[in-house]
Amino acid sequence: MGTLQVESRFKKYRYEAQMPKKPTIHKRTTLTNTGIFNIEQMDLEFSNGATRQYQRIVGSDQGAVLVVPMLDPETLLLIREYAAGMHRYELCFPKGHIEAGEGRVEAANREIQEEIGYAARDLQAITSVTVAPGYLYHTTHIVLARDLYPQRLPGDEPEPIETLPWKLSEFDQLLAQEEFTEARSIAALYIIRDWLANN
Amino acid sequence: MGTLQVESRFKKYRYEAQMPKKPTIHKRTTLTNTGIFNIEQMDLEFSNGATRQYQRIVGSDQGAVLVVPMLDPETLLLIREYAAGMHRYELCFPKGHIEAGEGRVEAANREIQEEIGYAARDLQAITSVTVAPGYLYHTTHIVLARDLYPQRLPGDEPEPIETLPWKLSEFDQLLAQEEFTEARSIAALYIIRDWLANN
Repeated sequence: MGTLQVESRFKKYRYEAQMPKKPTIHKRTTLTNTGIFNIEQMDLEFSNGATRQYQRIVGSDQGAVLVVPMLDPETLLLIREYAAGMHRYELCFPKGHIEAGEGRVEAANREIQEEIGYAARDLQAITSVTVAPGYLYHTTHIVLARDLYPQRLPGDEPEPIETLPWKLSEFDQLLAQEEFTEARSIAALYIIRDWLANN
Repeated sequence: MGTLQVESRFKKYRYEAQMPKKPTIHKRTTLTNTGIFNIEQMDLEFSNGATRQYQRIVGSDQGAVLVVPMLDPETLLLIREYAAGMHRYELCFPKGHIEAGEGRVEAANREIQEEIGYAARDLQAITSVTVAPGYLYHTTHIVLARDLYPQRLPGDEPEPIETLPWKLSEFDQLLAQEEFTEARSIAALYIIRDWLANN
């Protein structure tokens, strides 16, 4: 059990919090595996004795990458692609699962070659986010890709993916787009803007 | 088919893009319904003739709310709760599904009474985000809750949910917390900060 300390300029807000003890997993049962979704049930006992059964979707251990490509220091590259979950076209950043044997940066470089026809000389893993930690075992790693050059790898997309250059200075207009809804892309946009301002 | 127009201060970046034609769904088949996860397969034909089978998780039509509660104009209220998907404790904002017959604001007020023991006199639906539009039919509505007063409703949590007040001015420290990983909470934090600055 670790401790969490939060320092603050205002001394009265400094506090230590004990990390809670995780529930014990008494049993894990695969309920179904569709080939895409692997759903398991967990029989849990919390530290206070309460018991619960939870279901969760178990993704791969390596997770996925979301790539923020920059055509130049002022220009992001977004994509518009069909999103089957919502049955509509979405404006977002390129994403894809990390394949076996790949690192994050390698996966990011492969994904942008497949999806937008660019490779990058400068790739930086910035941070990692979860999507729905309550019911999805999955982490998406945000990677910044700069110093791009045209290079394409064949992908398995059903149709060409549209690329949309977007000036970083038109940040607010991007957030206002009805198609720009995905929490990971929104978070990545803000995080990258802050990162660029500090680096 | 609608059009998307992006105005820009720099005239050369102004362009119009035709909204692409959505694929035709030829068939929808329920693969499995675990009681929590409803998974269906969609047989699609894209406008270019390409065909694909996609699987997606179908959530409810009304979706969920993520509530950003503010104890006072400078102080957010976060929670720490067990997240079964990742099997760890997460720092995030209160969330919950919208129940039948509820609106977003009503659901938000119920959720914070159940999870943190406060009701709000001032509730505003700010925006909506998706979680994984590629494979999840689900929308989360972000609601700002202010002018809080103590009032609790019984919830079904296995253990008490910790509440953590956090100064808005300590924004960067929050983003730096290892437990603060959820894309929706990160996006909500940034969005609310901007909204408060503009309202």
